[in-house]
Amino acid sequence: MSSLSIGLVGLGKIARDQHLPAIQANPNLRLVAGADPTAGIDGLPHHASLEAMLAAEPGLDAVAICTPTHLRYAQARLALEAGKHVLLEKPPGATLSEVAALVELAERCPGTLFAAWHSQQAGGVAAAREWLAERRIERVAIEWKEDVRVWHPGQSWLWAPGGMGVFDPGINALSVATLVLPRPFFLRQATLEVPANCQTPIAARLAFMDADEAPIAADFDFRQTGEVIWEVRVETDAGRLRLTHGGNRLLIDDEVVVDAPTGDGNDEPSRLAAMVGQEYAGLYARFAELAAAGRSEVDVAPLRQVADAFLYGRRESVEAFEG
Amino acid sequence: MSSLSIGLVGLGKIARDQHLPAIQANPNLRLVAGADPTAGIDGLPHHASLEAMLAAEPGLDAVAICTPTHLRYAQARLALEAGKHVLLEKPPGATLSEVAALVELAERCPGTLFAAWHSQQAGGVAAAREWLAERRIERVAIEWKEDVRVWHPGQSWLWAPGGMGVFDPGINALSVATLVLPRPFFLRQATLEVPANCQTPIAARLAFMDADEAPIAADFDFRQTGEVIWEVRVETDAGRLRLTHGGNRLLIDDEVVVDAPTGDGNDEPSRLAAMVGQEYAGLYARFAELAAAGRSEVDVAPLRQVADAFLYGRRESVEAFEG
Repeated sequence: MSSLSIGLVGLGKIARDQHLPAIQANPNLRLVAGADPTAGIDGLPHHASLEAMLAAEPGLDAVAICTPTHLRYAQARLALEAGKHVLLEKPPGATLSEVAALVELAERCPGTLFAAWHSQQAGGVAAAREWLAERRIERVAIEWKEDVRVWHPGQSWLWAPGGMGVFDPGINALSVATLVLPRPFFLRQATLEVPANCQTPIAARLAFMDADEAPIAADFDFRQTGEVIWEVRVETDAGRLRLTHGGNRLLIDDEVVVDAPTGDGNDEPSRLAAMVGQEYAGLYARFAELAAAGRSEVDVAPLRQVADAFLYGRRESVEAFEG
Repeated sequence: MSSLSIGLVGLGKIARDQHLPAIQANPNLRLVAGADPTAGIDGLPHHASLEAMLAAEPGLDAVAICTPTHLRYAQARLALEAGKHVLLEKPPGATLSEVAALVELAERCPGTLFAAWHSQQAGGVAAAREWLAERRIERVAIEWKEDVRVWHPGQSWLWAPGGMGVFDPGINALSVATLVLPRPFFLRQATLEVPANCQTPIAARLAFMDADEAPIAADFDFRQTGEVIWEVRVETDAGRLRLTHGGNRLLIDDEVVVDAPTGDGNDEPSRLAAMVGQEYAGLYARFAELAAAGRSEVDVAPLRQVADAFLYGRRESVEAFEG
C-alpha cells in the first residue's frame, strides 16, 4: 500500500484530539497541510480554505473533513471533483439528501468517499457482528448515557437545529447496532425530551422492532452523572452478548471475549481516551484500505435512524438546560 | 399487456375516493378483493386481513396498500414475499429505514415495488421536467397552501407523531420539485410552526439550495382560506416556468402549455376532483407498466426531504389548533 498524502479540513477539537494523532501514527499516511479560516496547528502548513489548500498542494491525495456539518457537502463535492479521496467525520452531512447526492457523485469520481463512524471501529464490534450473524435475536437493550457537562462543555451547537442533542452520542450507538444486528430494524415509537430552551433532545427513549419482530429498546441520556454507560445487550437463542465501553469490550454469557484497551493509566479518563484513540486509528486504516482498493463506503443507516426519530418521535418539553 | 388482478388493502377514504375508481377505469386491471379489519366495499369480496386475502385468492397478482403508514412495512413485505406486485400509497412508509429495507427486499423478490406519488402524475409534470432539463435554474419558489379544515376534516392523525402535519400535502410539492428540477437540492434552513396542542407543524417555511447554489424557497401552510394554492415557479436563464393546480397546469412565460382537466363542471371542487382522479389513473397505468416490465420504482427523495426538515428545522410554537 503506497503512502497517501492527506490534508485536514476544519481544525477544531475533534481534528486535533483524534484525526491528527491517528494520521501521524499510521505509516501509510502523511499529513501535509491543514485548512481552516482561523485556527492553525503548530508545524503544519496552513491554508485559509479547502480551495486554497487544493491550489497550493496539487499532489494531495486525500482530505479529511471535520468542519461543521452544514459545510461538508460543498467541501466534499469540491474535493471529489478534484479527484481526491474524502473522509467525512460523523455524521456525513447535515441532511440525508446531501449525503445521498454525495454518494451519487462519488460513483462518477475516481476518489474514495468514506463516511467515518468511529464507534464501528471499536474493538469488540467485528466479533460481535460475526457471532450475532448466526443467532436468532430475541431482545436488544441499548443504553448510551453520558454527562453533557463533562463530555460537551460549551458545545452550544448541540442544542440548535441540526445539532441533534443527545443523538450526537446516540448516533454512535445506532452506528454499532445497525452494523452488528443481523436484521434491519425500524422505529415503532419514540419520546424525545426537549429542554424548554433548546431545539434538540437531552434524552430519548426509542422502541424499535427488527424485521423478525424482535424488540429493540434504546435509552439515550445526556443527564447521566458519574461514569458513562455506552452499552448494547443482545439476548439470543444461544446466549447473551454484551458490548460495553462503546463497543470496546465484548462479553458473551458474561465471559470477556474482547477487552477494551486500558491506556497508560488505570483511571477512567485515560481508559476512555485510549479506546477512542484506537477507534480513530481503525478509521484511518480502513480509509487507506478503501483508497487503495478504489472503493467508497458510505453507511447512511445511522443518520437515517436519527432522522426517523425526529420525524416519528413524540416531543415532550422538559426542564430548561443551563450549561 | 395482460390483465393484472389486484387486491386493495386498507379500505379508507383514499382507497374509496381514488384507488377504486382508478383501478376500475383501467382495462389492464381487475379489482378482485378488498382487505380491512372493519370496512367493506359493496360488491367487492371482503377479507379481514391481507393474510386472509392472500390465502383466499392465491391467483392474485398485485396489492395496493392504503393502510396507515405504520402498518405498511409488514404488509408490503408479506405481499412481496408471496410474489405479488405492490403499490404503496404515499408516503411509502412511516420511516425511511423501513422503506430502505423494502427496497432491498424487492430486489430479491419477483414482484414490482412501486412507491406511488400521485402529484408526480399531474398533467404538466413530465413536460416541465423535460423543459427544465435544458435550462440553468436561477431561483425556485414553491407555494403549497390549503385549508386543513376543508381538505382534512377530522383527520386528527395528522397532528400526532408521524402524521407530518402540513407536510402531508407538502410532500406532494416535494415529490414534484425533486422530480422536475434538474439538480438535487438540500435544506439550508427551515422553520416549522407547531400548534401548542399538536406534535406536527401547521405551516413550514423551507430554504433549500440546489447543487449549483440556486435558492429554492418553499412555503407550506394549512391555514390558507379560500382557494388552494399548489404551485411551483422556476426562474431560468431562458424564461419562467410555472406549474399550478398541483402540477396539472404548465405555463412557460405565462403561456399555457398544458392545461388542467376541468371535470364535469366549472366549479373549483369539480376541477380539483378531476385533476386528482387523472393523477391516480396515471399511477395505475405506471404500476401496470412496471409490473409488465418486471421493474420496481421507489423514489425516496420526497420522504427524505421531509425527514430532513424534521431533523434540521427550527420549531416555533404557535396558537393551538382547534379542528
